[in-house]
Amino acid sequence: MKKILLDMDTGVDDALAIALTAAAEKAGDAQLIGITTCFGNVENTTAVRNSLSILSALGRTDVPVFPGSDRALAAKEKYIAGEECFLIHGHDGIGDAGFPLSEKAPETTDSVDFILQAAEKYGAELTLVPTGPLTNVARAIQRDKKTFEKIGRIVLMGGALAVKGNVSPYAEANISNDPEAAKIVLESGIPMTMIGLDVTHKTRIYSEETARWKTYGVTGTLFAEMTDYYIAFNNHEGCSLHDPLAAAEAIWPGTVGTLPFTVKVETESVARGRTYAVSYPDEGDSDHVQVGLTVSKTAVPLFKALLEEMLLSLG
Amino acid sequence: MKKILLDMDTGVDDALAIALTAAAEKAGDAQLIGITTCFGNVENTTAVRNSLSILSALGRTDVPVFPGSDRALAAKEKYIAGEECFLIHGHDGIGDAGFPLSEKAPETTDSVDFILQAAEKYGAELTLVPTGPLTNVARAIQRDKKTFEKIGRIVLMGGALAVKGNVSPYAEANISNDPEAAKIVLESGIPMTMIGLDVTHKTRIYSEETARWKTYGVTGTLFAEMTDYYIAFNNHEGCSLHDPLAAAEAIWPGTVGTLPFTVKVETESVARGRTYAVSYPDEGDSDHVQVGLTVSKTAVPLFKALLEEMLLSLG
Repeated sequence: MKKILLDMDTGVDDALAIALTAAAEKAGDAQLIGITTCFGNVENTTAVRNSLSILSALGRTDVPVFPGSDRALAAKEKYIAGEECFLIHGHDGIGDAGFPLSEKAPETTDSVDFILQAAEKYGAELTLVPTGPLTNVARAIQRDKKTFEKIGRIVLMGGALAVKGNVSPYAEANISNDPEAAKIVLESGIPMTMIGLDVTHKTRIYSEETARWKTYGVTGTLFAEMTDYYIAFNNHEGCSLHDPLAAAEAIWPGTVGTLPFTVKVETESVARGRTYAVSYPDEGDSDHVQVGLTVSKTAVPLFKALLEEMLLSLG
Repeated sequence: MKKILLDMDTGVDDALAIALTAAAEKAGDAQLIGITTCFGNVENTTAVRNSLSILSALGRTDVPVFPGSDRALAAKEKYIAGEECFLIHGHDGIGDAGFPLSEKAPETTDSVDFILQAAEKYGAELTLVPTGPLTNVARAIQRDKKTFEKIGRIVLMGGALAVKGNVSPYAEANISNDPEAAKIVLESGIPMTMIGLDVTHKTRIYSEETARWKTYGVTGTLFAEMTDYYIAFNNHEGCSLHDPLAAAEAIWPGTVGTLPFTVKVETESVARGRTYAVSYPDEGDSDHVQVGLTVSKTAVPLFKALLEEMLLSLG
């Protein structure tokens, strides 16, 4: 059974990725072994709180949540979520939909420790799915690369290879929030799959779909209102399924069509946070990053249906 | 028989593209119907002179050369080749190797007129291969898009989708030399194939190969010394086969592996000249540009061998 470890800055689409992974587990396709948190869409303490709330709403208080990085590698001060985070994800980070607080407490083990423990314990069975800044992942690699490399597969949401960024013409938010960490991870030579804006903006959920969820009951309504918040503040129609698409690719490989590139991360200049491929063979040709460039037209409706089926069953 | 029309700013790698196309014609794979010229690696008048010289060296004075654009669409003054052009392509634009002047004169028909005449005459049989700035092509589209669209296939060398540019971190030289023209062409909605730095830097020729050419005789030596000039001034080993790769894909489709994107061209800001894909479906999803992302490992040695065989036969 494939073990999934979600590493996230739990905002709206992260919450949908948790729900999708739980739905996949219900279908017998994967097992969610834990959530490690990070600052990003929200502050780290909020990511912990939201992860616990979402798991509770899904009836999955058995899944442990491990508090992680509260700032970027190079940051001296703790990260403070800004107005743009509230605009997209709501003041509580999960669409101000009114998700109840969980009664469960987070674990005392740190995110980075848990990532390495899980790598040691599950090895090739483990798929790590970072959908926030890559701070925890970079720290795990820095602390013990050999153990980290035991992880079977890494599928991250982040970057923009051939398209413009969403926080600048060059940078996607997760990479932009900690370019130094992204550089450590993406330039590590470790094989990984990058699900960036190249494919996530093409994968969306619309208010017609969330309207149906509201007819299912309390839980369906919470998830619908959370998602509607994101849709309402989106200049473009619908809500891009950034993090759920990464989770889907982790659970059902082939959901996203990829090509191998040697990816680098710009940390200087106006393009800080840009992910780009090397063009010269002598700049590196490890081609260790499988970058998502196409999305399966059949896989997306299937995973949306699975998510919806679970919300229906939860009422 | 596939008809090839090369549209070029005849520098070193353009000259190799002419030689490759002539070699393909000798092998019965294509017919070179003409060369239309443009400013870029060299001034337009130099592109005319060099095209005639290279054709003469190849014993192909039957191929007509049509003088084209001497400046970018938005430029008021005639383009003047700068020091960086001389550094890469030599003062004569073809590696200062001593190619004799041709005795043949260029045609009196303008490049843009000839492109449209060829579109009308050959239609689907015609493949247009622009390997310089897209000025002539943009002007042909502006003048008569309906006739232009009769062209069977367009395979252009230019752009950098997932990699950094070569004249700035964002822009490749052909696009940078006339971003307004590139915007007209790449955003026209007309199906085309873009062979950019994503693949051309991975396709190179080395001094071991040109050393062999020198043993074949006068013509082999001219082409070898021309190419060696480019290699010597290249910070990276070898000479990137930018234009020959576009010609090869035009002659032998599948040489380059492509994926379809809706490509746009940045004309403002520090990223002027950047080619990028749209990420949101509502920004356009015509996916009319097949962008080269992989190179066939078998095709490149084959086309290099064909080129070498011809140089051997010419002596």
